[in-house]
Amino acid sequence: MYKLRISTLQKKLKEEKLDAVLVSSVSNITYLSGYANFSEKEREAYIFIGADFAYLISDARYMEEIKSNVPHLTFFERSHKNPIADLFKKHKIKNLGIEENNLTVSEFKLIKRHFKNLKHFEISRSIKTKKEIDKIEKACKIGDMAFEYILKKFKAGVTEKEIAKDMENLVRDRSAEFSFPAIVAFGKNSAVPHHHTGETVLNENEFVLLDFGVKFENYCSDMTRTFFFGKPNKKQKNMYQAVLKAQQKAVEAIEQGERKVAKIFKAAGLAIPHSLGHGIGLEVHEAPHISPKSKEILKEGMVFSIEPGIYIPNFGGVRIEDLFVLEKNSLRKLTHASVEPKII
Amino acid sequence: MYKLRISTLQKKLKEEKLDAVLVSSVSNITYLSGYANFSEKEREAYIFIGADFAYLISDARYMEEIKSNVPHLTFFERSHKNPIADLFKKHKIKNLGIEENNLTVSEFKLIKRHFKNLKHFEISRSIKTKKEIDKIEKACKIGDMAFEYILKKFKAGVTEKEIAKDMENLVRDRSAEFSFPAIVAFGKNSAVPHHHTGETVLNENEFVLLDFGVKFENYCSDMTRTFFFGKPNKKQKNMYQAVLKAQQKAVEAIEQGERKVAKIFKAAGLAIPHSLGHGIGLEVHEAPHISPKSKEILKEGMVFSIEPGIYIPNFGGVRIEDLFVLEKNSLRKLTHASVEPKII
Repeated sequence: MYKLRISTLQKKLKEEKLDAVLVSSVSNITYLSGYANFSEKEREAYIFIGADFAYLISDARYMEEIKSNVPHLTFFERSHKNPIADLFKKHKIKNLGIEENNLTVSEFKLIKRHFKNLKHFEISRSIKTKKEIDKIEKACKIGDMAFEYILKKFKAGVTEKEIAKDMENLVRDRSAEFSFPAIVAFGKNSAVPHHHTGETVLNENEFVLLDFGVKFENYCSDMTRTFFFGKPNKKQKNMYQAVLKAQQKAVEAIEQGERKVAKIFKAAGLAIPHSLGHGIGLEVHEAPHISPKSKEILKEGMVFSIEPGIYIPNFGGVRIEDLFVLEKNSLRKLTHASVEPKII
Repeated sequence: MYKLRISTLQKKLKEEKLDAVLVSSVSNITYLSGYANFSEKEREAYIFIGADFAYLISDARYMEEIKSNVPHLTFFERSHKNPIADLFKKHKIKNLGIEENNLTVSEFKLIKRHFKNLKHFEISRSIKTKKEIDKIEKACKIGDMAFEYILKKFKAGVTEKEIAKDMENLVRDRSAEFSFPAIVAFGKNSAVPHHHTGETVLNENEFVLLDFGVKFENYCSDMTRTFFFGKPNKKQKNMYQAVLKAQQKAVEAIEQGERKVAKIFKAAGLAIPHSLGHGIGLEVHEAPHISPKSKEILKEGMVFSIEPGIYIPNFGGVRIEDLFVLEKNSLRKLTHASVEPKII
């Protein structure tokens, strides 16, 4: 699998007239190596691939693990005595691809002197294989379970953090983890799309917004449910129905054959203060981007969320988010938790 | 506090003949705003500060929260219709400071056309205030408690993941979180400095290495303990004593007035395949860097780890790590968990 990914990349290098690529993003390093333990916060590794070589560059701390777990890449131990520059010199690369959206300006300044040309190189992960889709589906399934389980825990007085923690424990018991810190938002907090789960206590007659995802074998899920604890008034009901309808309209547009993201967004018919959705895989947010000005075209094998929302400051918000995979002739939903859960 | 940080930064801008700075790293955004909820993975915000303005730039999702929680910065809502470029044009900045070690090449390409000169600007957080040290100390205290608590849980058959989860639960019950995924390494795994906590089961007569930290009110702690489950043999005892001695020697060097990091490293007298230590604060790893070729000089108010280690592949490893703050005339230890815990 990894060998195929590398040979595909080598073919693309040739097409783009590049001699090699320096991969720096952790997600693409995971994609090409299968090794997912590098820090997102510090630059611990690169992958350096040319027509006839493929290195994983890291330091001595990782040597043993990489040598035994990543046999398809040559480990290059980087150190003060053994700088990456030596590797660059050895292979006499002129035209280098880099991940411009990941490499920092400092790194660029350090490496550019070793090459004649540097240009952006995109490693596309947006079209998933069956195996990848299976993993995302498994992550979704664990998420569905966590959601069904947590519904029983809602009662007046519970805090957002308690709900998040309870869900996370269940997810961990299934050998998975949260793919991002869960958003649990009660009442007015639901109007803040990226609310930070806190000590807010649940009261009767409030919105509850739950946005969480699971990571299973490095692949992520993502789902949002909004429901009402108590009895919604008319305004609240209308908000909910409008969001649900927007999601249905976007789904229908795709089912009817629309593949242009901008048009799907338009079909949803809501002014949404964030993207309508996003691709998902090794990262929670990855290509395709489903934003109003996007030029992306949906293709078979893409996995993405559709998540319209309405947010009224100091009142409340509603967002409904599901994951879908675009298959040959159909759009298949991967998240199955009820959109209209009965909790009381 | 935040106003003082901003005025200090404005003074430094003037000294470096810069008209403004574009801050992009999440840790420095937290440092200047007090707001810590931006994603580390996606670029959700910038801070843009000049002689007579100070903006926090983000999108509509964050508007409400920023406006109510960060009154000392002007919120600039970035959108398709309202790009950052408008802000740049308005303030007619010629010389801009950027965080070269954080800004990506793509971002650099997008913004450079708006300025005459761009150069690196360093926001130093290495010297901590009393308030910051208090928070780190509180994080250390929670870490000490978690360690004392977890000692009771070691028994043959327990897995690394179970230990990590148990500790994390205790940390969360104290309104804190792990500052990084804990490293729990049994037996041979202890020889992998960045071992990924897994399903390995504890057996009699094995090394146990625990490297974990706590984040409390955005400030981090970090501590490593290695101990023996059962009866160590001579080689294992010697490894332990050598590491302990290296740490003591580094500490003594500082206590005796040595402030040059390179010399302190030398004083420890061990060939360590990673840094001897690192500064800590809003990030687990930040300045000062305590590596053999470092030119850093320790100063009053710096908080850092000292963590020598010995690693023998396929046999085991020992690392001992404590946090220290350099005070006026002394080095004060912030982590107090026993270095030679009795667990059996």
